[in-house]
Amino acid sequence: MSVNQTKRKVILDCDPGHDDAIAILLAAKAPKVELVAITTVAGNAEVEKTTVNALKVCEIAGLSDVPVARGAGQPILRERRTAPDIHGDSGMDGPLLPQPTKSPVEEHAVDLIIRHLLASDGDITLVPVGPLTNIALAMRREPAIIPKIQEIVLMGGAMFGNTTPAAEFNIFVDAEAAKIVFESGVPLVMVGLDLTHQAMATPEIVERIAAIDNNVSTFVVELLNFFSDTYFHVFGFGGAPIHDACAIAYVNDPSVFTTIKRRVDIETKGEFTYGMTVVDLYGVTGREPNVEVADKLDQEKFWTMLCDALKQYS
Amino acid sequence: MSVNQTKRKVILDCDPGHDDAIAILLAAKAPKVELVAITTVAGNAEVEKTTVNALKVCEIAGLSDVPVARGAGQPILRERRTAPDIHGDSGMDGPLLPQPTKSPVEEHAVDLIIRHLLASDGDITLVPVGPLTNIALAMRREPAIIPKIQEIVLMGGAMFGNTTPAAEFNIFVDAEAAKIVFESGVPLVMVGLDLTHQAMATPEIVERIAAIDNNVSTFVVELLNFFSDTYFHVFGFGGAPIHDACAIAYVNDPSVFTTIKRRVDIETKGEFTYGMTVVDLYGVTGREPNVEVADKLDQEKFWTMLCDALKQYS
Amino acid sequence: MSVNQTKRKVILDCDPGHDDAIAILLAAKAPKVELVAITTVAGNAEVEKTTVNALKVCEIAGLSDVPVARGAGQPILRERRTAPDIHGDSGMDGPLLPQPTKSPVEEHAVDLIIRHLLASDGDITLVPVGPLTNIALAMRREPAIIPKIQEIVLMGGAMFGNTTPAAEFNIFVDAEAAKIVFESGVPLVMVGLDLTHQAMATPEIVERIAAIDNNVSTFVVELLNFFSDTYFHVFGFGGAPIHDACAIAYVNDPSVFTTIKRRVDIETKGEFTYGMTVVDLYGVTGREPNVEVADKLDQEKFWTMLCDALKQYS
Amino acid sequence: MSVNQTKRKVILDCDPGHDDAIAILLAAKAPKVELVAITTVAGNAEVEKTTVNALKVCEIAGLSDVPVARGAGQPILRERRTAPDIHGDSGMDGPLLPQPTKSPVEEHAVDLIIRHLLASDGDITLVPVGPLTNIALAMRREPAIIPKIQEIVLMGGAMFGNTTPAAEFNIFVDAEAAKIVFESGVPLVMVGLDLTHQAMATPEIVERIAAIDNNVSTFVVELLNFFSDTYFHVFGFGGAPIHDACAIAYVNDPSVFTTIKRRVDIETKGEFTYGMTVVDLYGVTGREPNVEVADKLDQEKFWTMLCDALKQYS
Repeated sequence: MSVNQTKRKVILDCDPGHDDAIAILLAAKAPKVELVAITTVAGNAEVEKTTVNALKVCEIAGLSDVPVARGAGQPILRERRTAPDIHGDSGMDGPLLPQPTKSPVEEHAVDLIIRHLLASDGDITLVPVGPLTNIALAMRREPAIIPKIQEIVLMGGAMFGNTTPAAEFNIFVDAEAAKIVFESGVPLVMVGLDLTHQAMATPEIVERIAAIDNNVSTFVVELLNFFSDTYFHVFGFGGAPIHDACAIAYVNDPSVFTTIKRRVDIETKGEFTYGMTVVDLYGVTGREPNVEVADKLDQEKFWTMLCDALKQYS
Repeated sequence: MSVNQTKRKVILDCDPGHDDAIAILLAAKAPKVELVAITTVAGNAEVEKTTVNALKVCEIAGLSDVPVARGAGQPILRERRTAPDIHGDSGMDGPLLPQPTKSPVEEHAVDLIIRHLLASDGDITLVPVGPLTNIALAMRREPAIIPKIQEIVLMGGAMFGNTTPAAEFNIFVDAEAAKIVFESGVPLVMVGLDLTHQAMATPEIVERIAAIDNNVSTFVVELLNFFSDTYFHVFGFGGAPIHDACAIAYVNDPSVFTTIKRRVDIETKGEFTYGMTVVDLYGVTGREPNVEVADKLDQEKFWTMLCDALKQYS
Repeated sequence: MSVNQTKRKVILDCDPGHDDAIAILLAAKAPKVELVAITTVAGNAEVEKTTVNALKVCEIAGLSDVPVARGAGQPILRERRTAPDIHGDSGMDGPLLPQPTKSPVEEHAVDLIIRHLLASDGDITLVPVGPLTNIALAMRREPAIIPKIQEIVLMGGAMFGNTTPAAEFNIFVDAEAAKIVFESGVPLVMVGLDLTHQAMATPEIVERIAAIDNNVSTFVVELLNFFSDTYFHVFGFGGAPIHDACAIAYVNDPSVFTTIKRRVDIETKGEFTYGMTVVDLYGVTGREPNVEVADKLDQEKFWTMLCDALKQYS
Repeated sequence: MSVNQTKRKVILDCDPGHDDAIAILLAAKAPKVELVAITTVAGNAEVEKTTVNALKVCEIAGLSDVPVARGAGQPILRERRTAPDIHGDSGMDGPLLPQPTKSPVEEHAVDLIIRHLLASDGDITLVPVGPLTNIALAMRREPAIIPKIQEIVLMGGAMFGNTTPAAEFNIFVDAEAAKIVFESGVPLVMVGLDLTHQAMATPEIVERIAAIDNNVSTFVVELLNFFSDTYFHVFGFGGAPIHDACAIAYVNDPSVFTTIKRRVDIETKGEFTYGMTVVDLYGVTGREPNVEVADKLDQEKFWTMLCDALKQYS
């Protein structure tokens, strides 16, 4: 089909997670995205839970053809850390969904990523929206994949922190993995908190989604109600930022936000700054820029894209 | 004299430095500041140079009664680092001043600070506007001074960096000293780049100072011309921030800027973040706030205070 | 066969390497060792070279049934570091061997290790005699293997260093991997330099091996001649220590050396001590011992075991 | 007096401490040592206690002319750590001595050290037998003293540890200070545990000292009885090592032990190795040797020297 030829092939590596769920739902219907596979990782919750959550979202989204592969249950070096204060105990508290009938594939996420990339023509984009453990392990297991990756569009990092004063959750959970990915030489787009806090699901936005009024939009509203609640209690925000969907939105249409190319280093030694994405905003280091850092979100374009995708569900 | 009783006693620890020079000139005439002594430290230039510069400024300011004591020539642990790109080779390039006739006192800066504090009634404020080496060495030499310090109002730090992507110059030069001071328990006001970049000597400001038209204002204009020039070349700024004078301005009138109380830690282990002042803006660490962080400058109040002081010179 | 039932199943993870080659030759004929598979890793040379070397040794040893699987080409976090000064450019310079006719299996070393362990009854011993990258990656990829490992008998570490003043080569090359393995809770025997420097192939020993006078013993003599030469030039030793064979010797007969149980931690943060195996010899930390540290070698038993094995080759 | 001209001038910087006390007693009577001053530091106990202990020892030794100056009460960066398990609560438990009638001088230890060195002809040797805080602070306060120091003969460090598996107490207490001293370029003799464990006061030695039978030898026997007891309980030793006196013994007669010149670095970043003296025994770093490391003690010469000194007391 000719339309497909202009789509970008995506492996979505995630840890659902409320905003991960919305990222999956958007990826399934985004006109320029071809979802090749979903891989899971420990992050917002244990990998057993994020895998079940991914399967549940696939089921509600009718994504029966997209394989889901379970990945790393633990960061490369550090103790595991999850976020039950933000995502509840299941990792996706709020909506009540039946147990999935579908199972994950036998293949490990790291093997699936390597296999697809080695077999590709360099036309696969990785979209990791959780800790970067799977991607880093794949790069170390099989360095030959590195030149095959078209681009990595990742959700993570920031010029400030949400888990520590200096670090964002996804990078903080496995900063060593992030260091491997950021130093890999692959073209990299970092969709950090600076960007995703512009994608705030305010009550007005939630209402707009509710008005779509199909099964999936109802599910999304339930996700957002729970997620907004925890963001209000933990951070005092008046809405929840839909972090992960921003990365998919960019793959679908790069004009949804602007980027600035900068040197970004991952701090892994700091006493107070472990997991910081150190952005050389003013070029004082003289080191070569390695990352397109997401800057300004076109909010109307983003929400319209999301609503258009949700309307396609029946 | 009754007026004096309402003045705050200040020891100004500095490394002139263009903005240090302006801080001295302001301190000499600020109505609520009693300048007890000036101590010098290596920072913008070697301590021999910053001491000569301090003496020169005292001479032009007629500060013959204020002792100048030379302090530490080197950070506690790190190699010395100066800023000739910003302040020129002399540390105060630009104005041509005669060699000072006055000499520094025999007493070392660290000894002078300890002696004054021990003899005081707890009414001395330290205003360090260079690296914190002298203050930290004094605290370690004689811990009994710590409860005697009324307040430390320091220029340094920021929520971003100017020397590295993460660190401001004064803290970067001797982060170990900064760690000692920030963990000392002394009431602390951090006047960082977030604040001082609001004290930008634009061409309009320079003109306003020039119009005062006395020896000292002419000297200040020469300082600002050189300093603006390097700030333009290094950072692309349209003027120079008068960092150090902000700390003196606050001692003279705390309403010149607002502050927010936060936990601030000094990173000394980081690979990319050495010298960062890690500010827990959203309280995610749960640790006790230890620093009043300067936030918003009342610019009109600041420049009026400075011009009023400069007008008092003949 | 009843004899086999008393043999210990071994996966030998190696980076041949002269002493690795001798370890393979010993493992092939040691009466109590059943060599299940050989896996390779970057260490003494790049993994492409160590894999070819392993295949060559298998060929000369007649090990046509033992699969050789290629593993990690790079440490988990660090830059790759090899040892051409000790092992020559090929990793096994000295003897001239034909290119191997056998190929490595398709399966990656990490996958092979995981598959064998998961399918086992907990009766497989891992003998890593190079950097611990493969073992650590396997543990992180599939934590379920950890309770299945009977024992890890590793060559590496010491109470002193050979690559830095504090660190031994195998641990230094990938200290993060070593940290994962040493903290895994698996029963661990550390065969470090303290032990292996007692297994010195002096001229008398080389002569004793030469007297066996078959193809394999001739190959071993060629290995030892080259290896002794580099040890003499780099360290001033009067012979080469047959490090890796000591680990296999222990699996074959644990009475070949004594051990002492101690707490051992891997230093990954030190400026001068990266990769050190910090042995709490006097129990000052009060922490639970986690490693049997090899102490005194029964030299006669060791050389006799090796010569007996070599005599079995035709 | 002509005899004096061949004596070496010594400032003994100490934290008595049982073995420090013996070092003072030896220094007072060693024929080639001229004790210029005693300075104290926090280490075995708080500096208030080590200062009182030093004064008590001076009193029993009749050292009324030697000034005692109190020094740093805290390491440069780290929290204070003392050794009550080894030296008791007073820092010198065991003998019951009256309160000293003598007081410390007004001058701070750091100032005294600087003043003496600046006024000297480069003929003063520093003998620090506690943490190196005073020496490091003096070097940073006044770098001009560095070329004036004839030699530093320090007790501290080792190729193994007693406080952690990797670090000796004196260096561990203030490794940053040690780093400053070891990198200062001053000729350095490191009298570490490798050496001082050869100076073990066995029951035979204690008996030999007891036989001297004067006030001071009785005091020494009381010190050794307490000290041997704690060494037995903490380390299982059959006697106490007279660490600090070895440094004085070397100044009095360098032939009392042999030394080997090596590169020694101080680890200040390690997770398990903070405070380690990393000795490049085999020259693998290629870095310039900076320290004479004490190697083999001539035990008979050492004990004879000590007994001869003790016999001089009445």
